[in-house]
Amino acid sequence: MQNSDVVRVGLMGLGTVGCGVVRLVEEHQDDLYNQTGQRIEIRKVLVQDLDKKRPVPLEKSMLTDDPRAILEDEEIDVIVEVMGGIEPARECIRQALEKGKHVVTANKDLMALHGAELLSVAERHGCDVFYEASVAGGIPILRALVEGFSSDRITQMIGIVNGTTNYILTEMDRRGAGFEDALTQAQALGYAESDPTSDVDGLDAARKMAILATLGFHMEMPLEDVEVQGIADITTEDVQFAEQLGYRMKLVGIARSDDGKVEVSVQPALLPQNHPLSSVDGVYNAVYVHGEAVGETMFYGPGAGDMPTATAVVSDLVTVVKNMRLGINGSGIVAPYREKVLKTPREIHSKTFLRLHVSDEAGVLAQLTRIFADAGVSLEKVLQVPRSREKEAEIILVTHTASRHQLRQVLANVEALESVLTIQSHYRVEGGC
Amino acid sequence: MQNSDVVRVGLMGLGTVGCGVVRLVEEHQDDLYNQTGQRIEIRKVLVQDLDKKRPVPLEKSMLTDDPRAILEDEEIDVIVEVMGGIEPARECIRQALEKGKHVVTANKDLMALHGAELLSVAERHGCDVFYEASVAGGIPILRALVEGFSSDRITQMIGIVNGTTNYILTEMDRRGAGFEDALTQAQALGYAESDPTSDVDGLDAARKMAILATLGFHMEMPLEDVEVQGIADITTEDVQFAEQLGYRMKLVGIARSDDGKVEVSVQPALLPQNHPLSSVDGVYNAVYVHGEAVGETMFYGPGAGDMPTATAVVSDLVTVVKNMRLGINGSGIVAPYREKVLKTPREIHSKTFLRLHVSDEAGVLAQLTRIFADAGVSLEKVLQVPRSREKEAEIILVTHTASRHQLRQVLANVEALESVLTIQSHYRVEGGC
Repeated sequence: MQNSDVVRVGLMGLGTVGCGVVRLVEEHQDDLYNQTGQRIEIRKVLVQDLDKKRPVPLEKSMLTDDPRAILEDEEIDVIVEVMGGIEPARECIRQALEKGKHVVTANKDLMALHGAELLSVAERHGCDVFYEASVAGGIPILRALVEGFSSDRITQMIGIVNGTTNYILTEMDRRGAGFEDALTQAQALGYAESDPTSDVDGLDAARKMAILATLGFHMEMPLEDVEVQGIADITTEDVQFAEQLGYRMKLVGIARSDDGKVEVSVQPALLPQNHPLSSVDGVYNAVYVHGEAVGETMFYGPGAGDMPTATAVVSDLVTVVKNMRLGINGSGIVAPYREKVLKTPREIHSKTFLRLHVSDEAGVLAQLTRIFADAGVSLEKVLQVPRSREKEAEIILVTHTASRHQLRQVLANVEALESVLTIQSHYRVEGGC
Repeated sequence: MQNSDVVRVGLMGLGTVGCGVVRLVEEHQDDLYNQTGQRIEIRKVLVQDLDKKRPVPLEKSMLTDDPRAILEDEEIDVIVEVMGGIEPARECIRQALEKGKHVVTANKDLMALHGAELLSVAERHGCDVFYEASVAGGIPILRALVEGFSSDRITQMIGIVNGTTNYILTEMDRRGAGFEDALTQAQALGYAESDPTSDVDGLDAARKMAILATLGFHMEMPLEDVEVQGIADITTEDVQFAEQLGYRMKLVGIARSDDGKVEVSVQPALLPQNHPLSSVDGVYNAVYVHGEAVGETMFYGPGAGDMPTATAVVSDLVTVVKNMRLGINGSGIVAPYREKVLKTPREIHSKTFLRLHVSDEAGVLAQLTRIFADAGVSLEKVLQVPRSREKEAEIILVTHTASRHQLRQVLANVEALESVLTIQSHYRVEGGC
C-alpha cells in the first residue's frame, strides 16, 4: 500500500448504484477528505460494455471490461463491488482479498451465501470487508447491530427488508388492488424487475435476514436455515379482513432468539396497526430490533435506490480509508462465536390468523372451537360473515400464542372437518403482546 | 496502561443508569469478552453515600466518595461518568483525560456546553471520549451520523428527543388531558422529575439538538445558538384543532442546513399525521434524518430508562476497549470543519398554524386574508368555527411555507386588527411537502 494521501479505488460495476458511488465520491470529495485526511480516487471501473453511454462523466481510459485490469493493479487499495450476482463477484472479491485489497460490497446474495468464507479470507489477509449496503439500502442497520448494540443481547429482529413486496402489499391494502395488478404497477414504476421471482417469493428478504441473524445473534446462519414463504398467494380479501381486525399485512423477516435457540423465517404476516412497522409503506424498509436491555428500537429508511445504496457503500469506503490510516484493517471482523441451535416446531410460537370457508349450518363454530381447545390453543378473535354464495359462511379466527406444532395439529383437524370447505389462508400474527 | 487482558473501569455515579451499567457488564461478561478479547472489570465506583442500599451487589471496598480515588488510580483505564450535571463531572473528566484515561459519558448537559473543550483535551492526550447515551438514550444515533452517513450531506434532523414532554403531549392528544394534569401524571409515573423545568421548557431537548447539529453538520453549535420554546403554554384546544386539521403536536428539535446556512431550534410544532415522527408516542424518542443522497431515514427507540441508557454506555465502552487493543484511541475525533453560519429570519422558512379569536362580524376573514396576501404569504387551510361566547368566532389558519420575517410582519398586522381579539397561539408546521 502506498503511503501517499490518496486511496485508489477499483469500482466493479457501473449500474445505477455504481454511478451513484461515482457521483458521491466526486461531489463530496472535500467532505471525505476532511473526515479521513485522504483523497479518494476512483481509478478504474469494470463495465460490461465499454461503449455504452453513462450518466456520469468518466474518462474512457478508466473503463475496462477485464476484472484483471483492476485485480492486478497494485496501486488499487480497495475494490467496490456493485455488480451483484454470485460469479464473477465472488471470485473477484476472493482474489482482491488475497492481493491485500479491501472490499466494500452491496451484494446480499453473495454475502448471504458466501459471507463466512469471504470474511475468513479477509481476516487471514488483514483486509476489511464491509457490506452495509447489502441489507436495507440506506439504513445503517449493520453498524447498529455490530457497534450500537454490542453490549446488549438481541432477542428479536423483524424486518421489512424488501421494497418491491412492501410496495405491492401497500397497494393491495390502500387501493384494494389484486396481487397481479399491484405487481404490474410496481414493474411499470421500476420498483419490480421484469422477473420478480426472487422478490415475490421472499428469497431476497431471506438473504438479508440471514445476514442480520448472523450479525445479531453472533452465529452462522446459512440461507438454507431460513424458512421462506412469498406473497404470490395473498388475496385482496386476506388483506381486507386483516385490516378489519386491526392488522396490516406485511412480508416480514423474523429472527428470534429464546434461551439460545433461534428461528429465522420470511413470510407474510399480520402486524397490529399500532406496531411501528405497520406504517412502513411503499418501497421503504425498516428493521425493528428488540434487545434484552434496550427494549424496542426501529430503523427506517430507503431500502433501495441508487443514491441511498451508494451512501451506504461510500460510508463503508470511508471506514476502510480511516482503517488504512490507522493500520487496523481486518480487525473489525468478529467471527460468529455462538453455536447455532435451531428451534423445533414445538419451540416456535406465534399467534395465527386463519380464514376458512364453511358450510353455513348449525354447530360448525362449536366443532371448530373444540378442535382449537383440544390442541390447547385459545382464541383471541372470531369473526363470522355470510358469503354471497348461498349456505356458505366465512370464518376468521385469530389464536392466542401457540406453537407451530399445535398449529399443525389444528390445521389437520380443521381440514378433516366435513363442514369446512376450504382453509383459504393462514398467516402468522406478529408484534402483539 | 497495562498489557494484560483486563480493562479496568472507574464508574462515577451509581444512580439508575450506573446500576444498569454494573448489571450489563456483569451479566454480559462473556459476550463482551468474545467481542473484544478483553475482560471488563469495574474496579471502583464513586457514590455520594457510602452506606446507601443499592440494587446491585458491589463489594463495599469498591465504593468511594472521593473522585481522586478513581482519578489517581493508575490501573484504571477508562472512566464511565453517569453522575450528570456540570461540576464535578467536567473537572473529573478533564483530569481523567489528562491522566490518559478514556471517557464514556451519558452527560448531555456537559457535552452540549463543554463538549468541544473536552474533545480537544482528549485529542491532545490520545484519549477516547464517547457519549452516545447523551442523546436519545438507547438509540445509536450518534454512530449513525458519524459513521453511517459519513458519505452523505445531512440537510435536516428533526428529533423527538425528550420523553417527558412527548409523554405529556401524547396524553393531551389521546385523553384530552390538560397540560397540568398530564404533567402530574408523568410525575406520578416517574417520567417527569419533581422539578420538570428543564424538560418542559425545552432545555433538555435543546442540549441534545446542539450535540446532533454539531455532529451532523460538522460545525460547532453552542447551546446559545439553539432557539428554545417549551410546551407549558400549549392548550388542549391547540392539540385538538391540530388533530382536526390532520396534524399531531410534538415538541421537536429542528436542525436544518440550506446552502451551508443552518438553523437549530426546539419548539412545539405540528407534524402531518402520516409523518413517521407522528406515531412516536409516550416516552419514546426518535430522530428523523434527511440526507441529500440517502433521503428520509428515522431512528426510533427508548429515549431514557436505566437499561436502554446503560446499553449505549456499555456499547461505547466496548468501542473504547477495542480501540485500546488496536492502540487507536483518540483517533475517531473529527473536529468540526465547517464554518458556522446561522440563518437570518428571512432565511428560516416553515408553514405556520395560527389560532385566533375574532369578533364574529362581516369582513373579518377578508381583512385577515388580505394581511397574509400583502405579506406574500399564501394560505393552505382555513377553518372557522363558532365560539360558545356570543359574537365571537375561532379562526384557524395554516399558511404555506413562508419566512420567519414574513410571519412576524403578519403577526404584527393581525394583532393590530380591531376585529382580532387575541392571537391564541401559533406553531410551526413541519415535515410536510
